[in-house]
Amino acid sequence: MRSHRSLDHPARNAKGATLRPSTSVAIIGAGPAGLMLGHLLAQAGVPFTILEAQTREHVLGRIRAGVLEQGSVDLLAEHGLDADLRARGLTHRGIHLQFERERHHVDFVDLVGRTVTVYGQQALVAHLLAEHERLGSNVVFEAHDVQPVGVTGSRPTVVFTKDGAPEQLECDFVVGTDGYHGVCRRSIPADGIVGYERAYPFGWLGILADVPPSTDDLVYALHRDGFAMHSMRSPEVSRLYVQVAPGESIDDWSDARIWDALQTRLGVDGWTLEEGRITEKSITPMRSFVVSTMQHGRMFLAGDAGHIVPPTGAKGLNSALADVALLARAILEHRGGDHTGLERYSARALARQWKVQHFSQWMTEMLHVHQEVPDASARAFRYRSQVGQLEYVTGSQAARQSLAEQYAGLPFTP
Amino acid sequence: MRSHRSLDHPARNAKGATLRPSTSVAIIGAGPAGLMLGHLLAQAGVPFTILEAQTREHVLGRIRAGVLEQGSVDLLAEHGLDADLRARGLTHRGIHLQFERERHHVDFVDLVGRTVTVYGQQALVAHLLAEHERLGSNVVFEAHDVQPVGVTGSRPTVVFTKDGAPEQLECDFVVGTDGYHGVCRRSIPADGIVGYERAYPFGWLGILADVPPSTDDLVYALHRDGFAMHSMRSPEVSRLYVQVAPGESIDDWSDARIWDALQTRLGVDGWTLEEGRITEKSITPMRSFVVSTMQHGRMFLAGDAGHIVPPTGAKGLNSALADVALLARAILEHRGGDHTGLERYSARALARQWKVQHFSQWMTEMLHVHQEVPDASARAFRYRSQVGQLEYVTGSQAARQSLAEQYAGLPFTP
Repeated sequence: MRSHRSLDHPARNAKGATLRPSTSVAIIGAGPAGLMLGHLLAQAGVPFTILEAQTREHVLGRIRAGVLEQGSVDLLAEHGLDADLRARGLTHRGIHLQFERERHHVDFVDLVGRTVTVYGQQALVAHLLAEHERLGSNVVFEAHDVQPVGVTGSRPTVVFTKDGAPEQLECDFVVGTDGYHGVCRRSIPADGIVGYERAYPFGWLGILADVPPSTDDLVYALHRDGFAMHSMRSPEVSRLYVQVAPGESIDDWSDARIWDALQTRLGVDGWTLEEGRITEKSITPMRSFVVSTMQHGRMFLAGDAGHIVPPTGAKGLNSALADVALLARAILEHRGGDHTGLERYSARALARQWKVQHFSQWMTEMLHVHQEVPDASARAFRYRSQVGQLEYVTGSQAARQSLAEQYAGLPFTP
Repeated sequence: MRSHRSLDHPARNAKGATLRPSTSVAIIGAGPAGLMLGHLLAQAGVPFTILEAQTREHVLGRIRAGVLEQGSVDLLAEHGLDADLRARGLTHRGIHLQFERERHHVDFVDLVGRTVTVYGQQALVAHLLAEHERLGSNVVFEAHDVQPVGVTGSRPTVVFTKDGAPEQLECDFVVGTDGYHGVCRRSIPADGIVGYERAYPFGWLGILADVPPSTDDLVYALHRDGFAMHSMRSPEVSRLYVQVAPGESIDDWSDARIWDALQTRLGVDGWTLEEGRITEKSITPMRSFVVSTMQHGRMFLAGDAGHIVPPTGAKGLNSALADVALLARAILEHRGGDHTGLERYSARALARQWKVQHFSQWMTEMLHVHQEVPDASARAFRYRSQVGQLEYVTGSQAARQSLAEQYAGLPFTP
């Protein structure tokens, strides 16, 4: 049944739910994946509606990843969505790998002719949302109790409540860009999907500090006490991390203790880590998660709804953008009569994702200390083997190239 | 005190032990490392004596590794010890990596301009020993109760019993090429050395079979049931392995069961694994082990006495040869008045060794199935992540190059 909108007398279904004007693509979740997919569809003239459970302010306030692959930058540029990125993004030639108090630069430009761009996910979300608002896109905040219905039939519906009243939205396709905790993946029957998961015995304590970064490119450091990282958000704001145990409480980490750990783990001779006021601090556990399928009938998952990586390789946001680039192309091809792209969406997205999963694990295992290993000899073995690995990686052109091509990003489309 | 040899009245010390003619280098252990070091010293005119606890027949009968790096081949050629190798060694351009029933060739010649050579350690030992016998080198078999004494002083001694009678051998240096279970490493006081160790939840069941190899280059296969490998010893003899649990008994593996596992794990469409009579079968546990130092006073460790790798990367024998090449050079430099090589021997050998350790672990983890992980989701995560890794490695020029340069062998000398 098609719905017709009337502002005075909105259409209602038999149970009294307001019928939203039907759309082609119902996008659940207004994070970067959902917002970006909306733009890709909008530019191709495909109707869509974005439903988001949180408030607009909440969405704009979420602090997440901050490093864009070359493919992500190219995607934004190709679709004219890079005005803010060009103004505020910090282009980096590579990263520093640090161990045994020595720092080694891995230069992506020299190695693979590509760069990465430091640009907070928060800024990307703000820009994509502002553009949607400028265009008058259908973005519904505070859409509660969202539930995709009938996705294995020919005409799915999304039911939800808005301002306390039930609504429903008919569509051709549902896209779940609603994150790991979202409803879309969980709405797939248990016999239709499996989640593969790996938990790590590490957590990241991350801070934002009002101090200009003490480094040009990001520093990833292996230290006997644990991993540490120096990143940045802007020329005035530093982003820093230290490895902690996954169950630790942020209350046990005073600002002084955090800076002390950072100074110890990031310290190298002839270099100073400048300290500043800490404006945000939190502890994040680390895990890997991948679904067995990213599609169920006419519903497709993208981004964190389908997979989670530990943050070490900076792959979470980029994977989400790779998913929606692939999915948008498949939807357009479908409208043109070629259904293979949609049929193969999950297989293609997961083929790339498993490579990304491996890279994220590889970076994580190379740089974190297994403090939980009870046997001192086995613990020391691991640490020294990681030093051997880092000596090999920093000393070998082939290994540096391999790191660079994965960090700067595997191709978005097969 | 210098000893003087008299065939009629051999010199004796105060305790009545026979004094062997003193030498410059006492080499403990007549495996490939000790025998090769002997040749390197002999060719430079440095006196040496090799003491071996086992019989000559036992030494000749030990079946071990079978793949020589380019550096090992070069070392043997450079010293005129490659006559048998040239006649019987099988040069290989690369290896096959197999997963999900597809086989991918990694061509070392194309990637890094080097090859590897399949040549059994048994054949190498036989050739090196025959050459020693031709030269009349001092090689003492069945030297029991060997004990290095006074290695932190200026004039070490090795005491042992031969034919039931005590003997002693004065020397400038003791070299422990007596393997993981040897006496030399264990003679270092506990506060002077630490061993770093990692056990793997895998074992290798290896067979020798009288059947021509069904493959040109070695096949390393990841299969859901576990790792399998197709290697060879000669154009008539195949060497094959399957992953088993480390505690399994060979009695539980009938020949039929072994061939069945090999057919399942190595099978690809359009290829046949030929079976033959199994002439040898055994199960080997897998572990990594590295000492904190490979020297103690005037005693130096080389080969398995200092480090063990899991066999996946074929690095055990090659590491031993790399050690003795480095050590022989350092001893010659020392005799020329430059002591830095000997002082830095351990640091240099271990720097290479830790890279090799990482590579061996990396190959092992990429290709073995963690059947011991209790959680099915975590187990499946690992397997799929390994498939992602293998898809990346076989698909990336940089990753293939990195594998090739490590498999064909890192430089022997810094």
